[in-house]
Amino acid sequence: MPQTDPAVSVFDATTAVTRSDGGGLAADLDPGWDVGPGVLNGGYLLAVVARAALVESPHAHPVALSASFLRATGPGRAALAVTPGPAGRTLAHSAVVLAGADGPTLSVQVTTATLTDEPPAYSAAPPPEASPVERCVWPVDDGTVVHPMPEVGLRKRVETRLDPATAGWATGRPGHEPVMRGWVRLADGRDPDPLALLLFADVLPPTSWAMGRFGWAPTVQLQVLVRALPAPGWCLAESRASEIAGGWLDEDYRIWDATGRLVAQSRQLARMPR
Amino acid sequence: MPQTDPAVSVFDATTAVTRSDGGGLAADLDPGWDVGPGVLNGGYLLAVVARAALVESPHAHPVALSASFLRATGPGRAALAVTPGPAGRTLAHSAVVLAGADGPTLSVQVTTATLTDEPPAYSAAPPPEASPVERCVWPVDDGTVVHPMPEVGLRKRVETRLDPATAGWATGRPGHEPVMRGWVRLADGRDPDPLALLLFADVLPPTSWAMGRFGWAPTVQLQVLVRALPAPGWCLAESRASEIAGGWLDEDYRIWDATGRLVAQSRQLARMPR
Repeated sequence: MPQTDPAVSVFDATTAVTRSDGGGLAADLDPGWDVGPGVLNGGYLLAVVARAALVESPHAHPVALSASFLRATGPGRAALAVTPGPAGRTLAHSAVVLAGADGPTLSVQVTTATLTDEPPAYSAAPPPEASPVERCVWPVDDGTVVHPMPEVGLRKRVETRLDPATAGWATGRPGHEPVMRGWVRLADGRDPDPLALLLFADVLPPTSWAMGRFGWAPTVQLQVLVRALPAPGWCLAESRASEIAGGWLDEDYRIWDATGRLVAQSRQLARMPR
Repeated sequence: MPQTDPAVSVFDATTAVTRSDGGGLAADLDPGWDVGPGVLNGGYLLAVVARAALVESPHAHPVALSASFLRATGPGRAALAVTPGPAGRTLAHSAVVLAGADGPTLSVQVTTATLTDEPPAYSAAPPPEASPVERCVWPVDDGTVVHPMPEVGLRKRVETRLDPATAGWATGRPGHEPVMRGWVRLADGRDPDPLALLLFADVLPPTSWAMGRFGWAPTVQLQVLVRALPAPGWCLAESRASEIAGGWLDEDYRIWDATGRLVAQSRQLARMPR
């Protein structure tokens, strides 16, 4: 484990990638990012994978990651095999496979580039109407909520405040639409950057929960696009499923920074909870 | 080249994958799928890659492909290196690298499964209002259009009829939104299936053309989700960009079959034409 210097954020320390004795890259996957027994959050894993790709890239930021979740990934030592692709002035490609003691668990296409905060030439994605963060909620088990959030590690590492309009499921009043919306930030006080946006791209409860269909919705494939450098402060994330069919569910995330700028998009195919 | 038996569709013949003498998989990429000098269409390449993945899969259909376009791919002999991942009763994963004479050009995460035409449990994506196919247009160079479609091979292989509402650019009246909408089908008369949907997921002119920004918008990463088996007949495809910033453009496709069912979704990150 990298030692957590008080000046280093927990997110930075637990996503660190090191050069192992054999010359390959490795990470110590931190048990504090769990979403269930022995299973780590997918967005956290993408941040680790992106760091590995950046080690070998002439560019500073991840702009596109597409991941196949081969198996659930648990905590502990993991090897990161990076296959560099073409690298140019504008962007660089690589493929990264993350493997634990039992073999590969995550296989990812990564594109890196150098992002700016230059204003968009065109934008059709203004932030949605959302309650201000101080009126948003987090359904902990205080005796009043029917379906409290499981007290997993992820929820301690990312502060999440759900818009009451998409949190009815917690108090026994699920809605008719698979939509979740909430404000998110790192609990360690670190401001968002492209790596944190990868984490936020899979951080809300499954959209199926909004309709009262609880249970784990395991991600099969997830693509995240990072569109700009986010401003400091809270980010607003909204996830939405377009179609649930044959046991499959898609989830689209859009993430805006504190200034209301679209900074990331993601789409995943997941299995529907039974 | 596989011989084109009159009973075999051009699409099927030109996406065929064969076992080469050394035991690996190979394809003869057909020059008739070009979108520019020596450059083949991305959706065509994904169909070839999916066929390679299906050879090694216990399942019948591609349900998710995520591709990094490392370099432009030209016609000719290509090797398809398939790395199988976990395969179960519900789905199977693999990674496929397509390489021509000059090395890898396309690296793809593939998930296969067995799709049905079971009706959706939930759908929030009804087809958009679109002109019926007989009122839609195809801007060929007949002397009246200002920006005719380039006469590339792709346009002979896929019949495309653009909704006049998103075709103003062809007659010198570009719009203010990066949106394209059109009916598509294989010109060889073959009905759509999941492989054809992969082709359709990158078949419309770039959305930037709708705003009068002509030029090639090279795909960097593309994810396609196939959601159901399509009914016979025309498919309706709509592509839309959410944000253009820093020289980057996203494009979201949604594709409905002739019954109005959502059958595929895609998202790509592309470079903006200058």
